Amino acid sequence: MPAPKGSQAPSRIRINLPEPTIDCGRYAPKRCVGDTVRVTADVFRDGHEILRAVVRYKAPGARRWLEAEMHALDAEIRGVRWAGEFAVTTMGRWEWTIEAWSDVFATWSDELQRKLVAGQEDLSGELSEGALLLRDAAERTKDAEDRATLERALDDLTAEAALAPDVLEAVERNAERGDATRTGVHALDVDRARARFSSWYELFPRSWGGLKAVEALIPDIADLGFDVLYFPPIHPIGRKNRKGRNNTLVAGPDDPGSPYAIGAAEGGHDAVHPELGTLDDVASLCETARAHGMDVCLDIALNASADHPWLTEHPEWFQQRPDGTLKYAENPPKRYQDIYNFNWDTPAWRELWEAWRQILVGWVQTGVKAFRIDNPHTKPFDFWDWIIKQVHAVDRDVIFLSEAFTRRAVMRELAKLGFTQSYTYFTWKNSRWELTEYVNELAWTKEAEYFRPNFFVNTPDILHAYLQHGGPPAFVTRLVLAATLSPSYGVYSGYEHFENVPVREGSEEYLNSEKYEVRERSLDGPLLPMIRRLNEIRHENPALQTLSNVHFLDTHNDALIAYAKTAPGNTIFVVANIDPHNAQEGVALVPAHLGFAPAFTVEDLLTGAHHDWRIGANYVRLDPHGDQQAHVFRIAS
Amino acid sequence: MPAPKGSQAPSRIRINLPEPTIDCGRYAPKRCVGDTVRVTADVFRDGHEILRAVVRYKAPGARRWLEAEMHALDAEIRGVRWAGEFAVTTMGRWEWTIEAWSDVFATWSDELQRKLVAGQEDLSGELSEGALLLRDAAERTKDAEDRATLERALDDLTAEAALAPDVLEAVERNAERGDATRTGVHALDVDRARARFSSWYELFPRSWGGLKAVEALIPDIADLGFDVLYFPPIHPIGRKNRKGRNNTLVAGPDDPGSPYAIGAAEGGHDAVHPELGTLDDVASLCETARAHGMDVCLDIALNASADHPWLTEHPEWFQQRPDGTLKYAENPPKRYQDIYNFNWDTPAWRELWEAWRQILVGWVQTGVKAFRIDNPHTKPFDFWDWIIKQVHAVDRDVIFLSEAFTRRAVMRELAKLGFTQSYTYFTWKNSRWELTEYVNELAWTKEAEYFRPNFFVNTPDILHAYLQHGGPPAFVTRLVLAATLSPSYGVYSGYEHFENVPVREGSEEYLNSEKYEVRERSLDGPLLPMIRRLNEIRHENPALQTLSNVHFLDTHNDALIAYAKTAPGNTIFVVANIDPHNAQEGVALVPAHLGFAPAFTVEDLLTGAHHDWRIGANYVRLDPHGDQQAHVFRIAS
Repeated sequence: MPAPKGSQAPSRIRINLPEPTIDCGRYAPKRCVGDTVRVTADVFRDGHEILRAVVRYKAPGARRWLEAEMHALDAEIRGVRWAGEFAVTTMGRWEWTIEAWSDVFATWSDELQRKLVAGQEDLSGELSEGALLLRDAAERTKDAEDRATLERALDDLTAEAALAPDVLEAVERNAERGDATRTGVHALDVDRARARFSSWYELFPRSWGGLKAVEALIPDIADLGFDVLYFPPIHPIGRKNRKGRNNTLVAGPDDPGSPYAIGAAEGGHDAVHPELGTLDDVASLCETARAHGMDVCLDIALNASADHPWLTEHPEWFQQRPDGTLKYAENPPKRYQDIYNFNWDTPAWRELWEAWRQILVGWVQTGVKAFRIDNPHTKPFDFWDWIIKQVHAVDRDVIFLSEAFTRRAVMRELAKLGFTQSYTYFTWKNSRWELTEYVNELAWTKEAEYFRPNFFVNTPDILHAYLQHGGPPAFVTRLVLAATLSPSYGVYSGYEHFENVPVREGSEEYLNSEKYEVRERSLDGPLLPMIRRLNEIRHENPALQTLSNVHFLDTHNDALIAYAKTAPGNTIFVVANIDPHNAQEGVALVPAHLGFAPAFTVEDLLTGAHHDWRIGANYVRLDPHGDQQAHVFRIAS
Repeated sequence: MPAPKGSQAPSRIRINLPEPTIDCGRYAPKRCVGDTVRVTADVFRDGHEILRAVVRYKAPGARRWLEAEMHALDAEIRGVRWAGEFAVTTMGRWEWTIEAWSDVFATWSDELQRKLVAGQEDLSGELSEGALLLRDAAERTKDAEDRATLERALDDLTAEAALAPDVLEAVERNAERGDATRTGVHALDVDRARARFSSWYELFPRSWGGLKAVEALIPDIADLGFDVLYFPPIHPIGRKNRKGRNNTLVAGPDDPGSPYAIGAAEGGHDAVHPELGTLDDVASLCETARAHGMDVCLDIALNASADHPWLTEHPEWFQQRPDGTLKYAENPPKRYQDIYNFNWDTPAWRELWEAWRQILVGWVQTGVKAFRIDNPHTKPFDFWDWIIKQVHAVDRDVIFLSEAFTRRAVMRELAKLGFTQSYTYFTWKNSRWELTEYVNELAWTKEAEYFRPNFFVNTPDILHAYLQHGGPPAFVTRLVLAATLSPSYGVYSGYEHFENVPVREGSEEYLNSEKYEVRERSLDGPLLPMIRRLNEIRHENPALQTLSNVHFLDTHNDALIAYAKTAPGNTIFVVANIDPHNAQEGVALVPAHLGFAPAFTVEDLLTGAHHDWRIGANYVRLDPHGDQQAHVFRIAS
């Protein structure tokens, strides 16, 4: 750095390592409306002067910056780390910066105080300096009362007068920030609260009688406590190379095909399959959902069947061979003759992006408030960055759920650039050790600033072996874990019926999967009462509505998993038996450092039973053949 | 991000979290000439294309960027983390960036290979794509041989011909980086090797007969293995308010005063105390030092005695009271009437900075190659940032040692902005637990990128209680620890005589400190042979010349500390008895994960004894009353 220009010496203050930030400010951390944002930074300067610092923040679209005082976290070491807070009250991009300056008057009065205490007698030099500071403040203030206070002190200046609390306060109120330094402007993306806390139910409308029939069920689904109703693609399905039941290569004449083979003569991604209903039906369904406090989520798969209108209207958007023919999808040696991928490197990429923008905005205008994006990790990152912002410019409410099961860095990148929520590896974390490690990573590393997990217990593609072989107790355990470990979780219909038969041993695909055939579904599975109760518990307990408040407890038994989740005035303990076959006993070891009372009462929110617990080991026994596979305790007030 | 302009689609590649970097590139990591720099980053893109990446680097003042290939560290997970290396061969600011692109031909030939293996027969479409890629490469190449290879393959294109290794190599050599993406340009500050690896000896020239007498001793000091000879201030000393022996407030008529009370009628920071010698003596001494492979370090204390010429020449550089009189230093209730601090906020700050630049450059031109800066943490950070660069523009060899014992964040900031080496808390880390924690922080956290510790066993200000009460064994232990834990360490003369009497019980100040009186010193302390041997060992063993290669070993006894230091082909084990009073026995537990042979022989470099060691526990006993207080073992080849 060359010697700075100007007659004022460069500021001596450093503001380092501001948080929350992601990748040096390349991405914006995420928060939700109603959150209190805690901003921290190293704030210090050379020498011994007393500093002050504020976080300055600005709401989306606001003109004025507001300020909140920051304080050193550890006064004992002349605290280098400072913190301040502000509440985010609207959706959109908030901005913040930190400003710090030397508090000349506080430094002066602190030294004067120390001299007084030490009995130093001649303070005339000190008082002449103080008089200058007070006079400056008196001239600066626009407050008549402050001016009066300051002038009164100046009238006959003594150390005692200068150190009077009202004088100090009057000066501070009118302090000049002579050497103020600021960080760059940092961003925060603030979503609605449902971005963090949501309960999803997934169904194939064709198995429930189409969109009108599903609309009629919405009161019941809402009554179960679900917030988001999510459909796999509802578009016309290609006929050429249509897949048959159980993913066979040749479809029978009545086979409906996979909803992921999108596009037919009836239309593409902007159309509704005629057998499901109409665009108006979607709009009506979305309105009914909204009336019941729910959102509708559409599945967006960015590929085309062989019959998709865009293949003929826009061949330039697809992969072409040198001879000009279009290339179907392949992952050698596998070939997918029924699917055509987009060529994201096409020179017409801008038209392609715009076409997708229109598709998504069209659905938003129909009333859709959430998109589950199929395989976003095989499309350009910049495309997602752009289109999420475009859609949010139309409706900031829209939630984007990333369905990327791939390398962790890629999943993180998608979350950083704007996906609201993400599918996770939860389905494959079934041991105590795996769950503890994974959830601690999600909750306590930097990832928590931008990656919001959505724990699905199952999906149309994932029926884990644990469920295949564990029977109903396995379904209970996984449901309790998903619903209490993650503030967002999801259930794909059939789970409540304990559906557990794979298409073949060793596969995670369902037998007779709804992906390839119509099933007859109804909302009467035996697990629904427990789902309803868990959703009630989730809504009633703030501790279950955030992620970074989980503390795993030792259980003295690897088949038992236990954790505490805490929010102000609300503590939940969960103990679950991971073994679906045998009774397991052990303890929930409550460590002293979590700050609970030495002894307290917990209420099992699933059974109503009460137990006396304490800091230390609390005996637990869970029996899949008995009455219970998991406890969800709340500390009784 | 709005949709990018231009007809080419935006690059689909991400290069994230590049290392080594400090605070988002705000500061440059440090390296030394001869180091191999390892650059890493997350490199990935959407989809399945094969990537290539290089680190591009540029020497100081060079015009051309060079490249080194990067490779994924973990191929198994389609490695997200990539690494590449380059050597830094000259001092100054090196620059680097990472470039990555999709390898279109490798992706194509990988897919072709998989189809061949799967027995797919009709590959005409694939070959027509490959032909395009080969023709492009043939047109692009300026190498006649490559063109011939490619045209031969094109002549009658078969899958086998396209997959021939020479064809692949010819295409790779002429690859087009169609979608190449780069990181920003990152910096590295490269010092000479002594910045990292150095042995310092500190003496007060006035106790050794002045500069000429010290010059005569240089061959002996060099023979002890020291690289840097460091003097407290050698300037004229103020007379007004001069301190007496043992820091008494009133000096006797013959008391020489503290060399830190700088400035008198004879001159200020640019002058030499007449009783020590002349500027020419300094120049001659520096030349002799250089001839013996040593550097001379001057202590720069940026404050003035009451008699400093600048007080009258430049009163505007000092703190003034409202009545225009100058303010002496104080830290209420303490007052330092003999010291005047500079006012770094003076409107004349630019002249003040420039005056200091001239002082330092003047000494550099006299031959001084290192500065120990007194209390840099009470002067502006930007001043140091600026003046270090200014001095380095004159002579990049110059080493700046920061003497800041203050908050860790402040010490780090000084190191980040350019101080070559730093004093540390080592003197106060005397237990096994403290040493392990502290050295692990220095060696294995991000701090290692910029903070080079210099472990002084004592200083004129610091005689730790451990030395006061431990007798010669304590001196041996601390010497071995400093010389083997840190690649740079220092000894202040008197240590080799086991000087251990404080000015009073509870103080870390020496009795009859050289700071306030002239002592008669000679180079004949009983600890010198061990110092010489340790310096020899340090020079012969690369493992002792770097910091981030230390692995602490369990000892089953808190009074014993043990660690391994490893370099290619060179492993040192140190075991030291921290208890200066009693024999201690325990083990050095060599863990398997460090990669040593199951059994090996170690040679004690202090005694020549050999021992059989193994992975696991190795018995050790160290006795302050017996022959040894510490082992320095080397694995025998």
